[in-house]
Amino acid sequence: MFESAELGHKISKVVYKKELPQLREQLLDDQLDLLQSGKFPVIILLAGVDCAGKGETMNLLHEWMDPRHIESHAQRELTDEEQERPQMWRYWRDLPPKGKIGIFIGSWYSSPLIDNVHGRSKNAELDQQLDRIIRFETMLCNEGALILKFWLHLSKEQQKKRLKKLEKDPKTSWRITDTDWKNFKLYNRFRMVSERMLRNTSTPESPWVIIEGGDEQYRSLSIGKAIHEALRRRLDAVEQHNIEEPIPPLFTSIDGLHILQTLDMTKSVSKKKYDDELEILQGRLNLLSRHKNFNKLSVVIVFEGNDAAGKGGSIRRVTQALDARSYRIIPIAAPTEEERAQPYLWRFWRHLPRRGRFAIFDRSWYGRVLVERVEGFCSQADWMRGYGEINDFEEQMVRNHTVVVKFWLSITEDEQLKRFKEREKIGFKRFKITEEDWRNREKWTLYEQAVCDMIDRTSTEIAPWTLVEANDKNHARIKVIKTICNQIEQALERV
Amino acid sequence: MFESAELGHKISKVVYKKELPQLREQLLDDQLDLLQSGKFPVIILLAGVDCAGKGETMNLLHEWMDPRHIESHAQRELTDEEQERPQMWRYWRDLPPKGKIGIFIGSWYSSPLIDNVHGRSKNAELDQQLDRIIRFETMLCNEGALILKFWLHLSKEQQKKRLKKLEKDPKTSWRITDTDWKNFKLYNRFRMVSERMLRNTSTPESPWVIIEGGDEQYRSLSIGKAIHEALRRRLDAVEQHNIEEPIPPLFTSIDGLHILQTLDMTKSVSKKKYDDELEILQGRLNLLSRHKNFNKLSVVIVFEGNDAAGKGGSIRRVTQALDARSYRIIPIAAPTEEERAQPYLWRFWRHLPRRGRFAIFDRSWYGRVLVERVEGFCSQADWMRGYGEINDFEEQMVRNHTVVVKFWLSITEDEQLKRFKEREKIGFKRFKITEEDWRNREKWTLYEQAVCDMIDRTSTEIAPWTLVEANDKNHARIKVIKTICNQIEQALERV
Repeated sequence: MFESAELGHKISKVVYKKELPQLREQLLDDQLDLLQSGKFPVIILLAGVDCAGKGETMNLLHEWMDPRHIESHAQRELTDEEQERPQMWRYWRDLPPKGKIGIFIGSWYSSPLIDNVHGRSKNAELDQQLDRIIRFETMLCNEGALILKFWLHLSKEQQKKRLKKLEKDPKTSWRITDTDWKNFKLYNRFRMVSERMLRNTSTPESPWVIIEGGDEQYRSLSIGKAIHEALRRRLDAVEQHNIEEPIPPLFTSIDGLHILQTLDMTKSVSKKKYDDELEILQGRLNLLSRHKNFNKLSVVIVFEGNDAAGKGGSIRRVTQALDARSYRIIPIAAPTEEERAQPYLWRFWRHLPRRGRFAIFDRSWYGRVLVERVEGFCSQADWMRGYGEINDFEEQMVRNHTVVVKFWLSITEDEQLKRFKEREKIGFKRFKITEEDWRNREKWTLYEQAVCDMIDRTSTEIAPWTLVEANDKNHARIKVIKTICNQIEQALERV
Repeated sequence: MFESAELGHKISKVVYKKELPQLREQLLDDQLDLLQSGKFPVIILLAGVDCAGKGETMNLLHEWMDPRHIESHAQRELTDEEQERPQMWRYWRDLPPKGKIGIFIGSWYSSPLIDNVHGRSKNAELDQQLDRIIRFETMLCNEGALILKFWLHLSKEQQKKRLKKLEKDPKTSWRITDTDWKNFKLYNRFRMVSERMLRNTSTPESPWVIIEGGDEQYRSLSIGKAIHEALRRRLDAVEQHNIEEPIPPLFTSIDGLHILQTLDMTKSVSKKKYDDELEILQGRLNLLSRHKNFNKLSVVIVFEGNDAAGKGGSIRRVTQALDARSYRIIPIAAPTEEERAQPYLWRFWRHLPRRGRFAIFDRSWYGRVLVERVEGFCSQADWMRGYGEINDFEEQMVRNHTVVVKFWLSITEDEQLKRFKEREKIGFKRFKITEEDWRNREKWTLYEQAVCDMIDRTSTEIAPWTLVEANDKNHARIKVIKTICNQIEQALERV
């Protein structure tokens, strides 16, 4: 894999000086077009062997292009706000918005690689981590990002030479520490693990490019040209709108039977029983939220359901049991401008709770496969890949000790009609029925199909859907709180 | 001050139950109108004696109103990301956007109060802190925020009773710890300091409301009604657009002499001298950025200047000396949607750097008193108060060991014309001169006046302006880097 990067590539200073002005002009041009189109972000990863020139390359790129529109990130200690969230949270917050360039030294590849080299993780674990990385990058690419991954390589001999040279020069000796020499002893292992990693994560959309790092001119010019070519190709493609790919249709059962039909919509709970049970359940939930181990968890609750199914009422019965300081309700409306400049899931990542806290989503990321699908707000390709992306997202939360509780509140078409009419009669403005509500009703069957597909594809063992028969509000509310209590209890047993 | 709150106010449960439904409907109504108008945020502070019902009140407000549009915040440990920024950073990030309600238990008042009670700060210091708070709240009010401050009071006797009651009840005994009894011993001192604090920070725009906390019904109903009345009054006022107040005109010198005229615009540096000096200065800056104490500081550099004065070129000469991982350039364009829903300075607060980092602003908060003033994008009242708000902002940075370096790059009208024409000739698109640039030129005198006022009012001892004669680019760049080096060196001597 590294053969071609150990040939001793070289570019003379004369050639370098001759070619540089044109390259810089091209890069500046690319960058300006990128900024003006605002159509996609560019993510550049600089990884590789120590001392192979990652930092130098980053600085050069800042010098060659307009540094005002580049955001650079280096591997650093996690802050405590980051430690309490899923591993990828720190990278989500650092993603460049559309039109900008983000450069990462030490990216999502660093820890998996280093942990394995130092024997802190097994190969199977590494493969799992790389799998997740591939899915993450695929999602970014599907969202339009251009990802350019450069691996700067040095042979063992070259690295040794370079370390010695840096150590000798009084201007750079501060850069070389004992750790560098310790790492150098692991060169062979590092090389082997890197090779495995590069091989497994070179995908058609975002392949690794391996660059020999020994000669500064060769390295810089190669990377600069590669960036220019990739960026220009993408800019041209975007202009011609030819990125859409075809997608196979979904499976629909031929006998018309589906999961929502299996619900017993006559279930109900009497007023008396409701009052008693609610008090007990709210007390239970309150105690759980003050459990000594509760601050090792966080809780994310998702409320989805038909219009007028009673999401708001159910949420209130949950929050009544909690201290206001411990939860945040996130009502999902249209995305803001800053959110539209990011991948779809970004606006949910930013609301993930710290430990010991609840985040309650009133509608959620499932909008992707519900309203956006039915109304055609995104392409079929987009919502089709949404299922997998959502599963990945929730898996990361669960791995970070987040309890993910998801409700679909289901009412019948008749019951909805009754509630719409009641609301119109009351006329109290906060319950106003809009034109849109009536329009959505006409698409009942389409929504039903979307809901069934959603449940089939995203009800997972680690984050199952709970279907709630909500024609009777008492029954629905009891079931909701009971489910939350059960899931938190199970999670507390595990931590 | 607390006399009226020790009278033993009481409301019977019967009256409470009778009045509550109407109040809740009013509050919901107010909240919905607030959300729909999206004109201003509401900030509710709940402070006061321990056990006087702050938490209970917060929970009640969540129950009475729609909790989806309330954001609540409790005093908690600072995260490390917060510790590295100016004190108020944590509150800036928690400010509710327009249309929403933010409730704070333990607000910007907590530390000043507690520190003084426990003897960790002197009275003079407390007064200083309160002064800053007043200026902060005045700014928020001027930006449109409605601030409601409630102080929940208990007499010493009442507090003792309440602590004992909570301790006795097995359901609440967990709430009372040794610390509570220790604090109780300080009651008299706490009361005295609180009184001083309330007196000093009750302003016409945001007065404290003292509520007796002993009787739950009285307390809850009083606060609920006060919120409804204030909110309704403000909503009505906003609808009638009658919040604008008159403002006195600025002083203009009668002899027409101003500070920009004192610059010697013929200053220049030869190519040879420039090359030599630049290399030395960039080396000096690089060493400073790697100084062992540099991570105790952060650096904020502001570039303002005439169009085509060479801001971009100067910035590049600075960043060339730095590691790309250590700085971020923030180009200031039109605010985003999320930024428009916040006070003017919010969008700059969010970019303040951590320790050991540079933030370089290409245009800045001074837009308020330059382009916004000249183009009439904000009212005279807005930009007039801008000077003081900006001084407060920068003072907070400096107190947090941020080096604030501010440049005005000045060129003459003739030189600008020459540069505009050159740029048009080159025709290279990244330097395109727009219609707007020509339009701005016509307002030369107005901008000049605005610049002079800005310098007079915001060149402070802790964050002085450096005027840069920029007709000669070499001279300008050398002066810029030299100034940055000097200011960092001075700061390093102080830490």
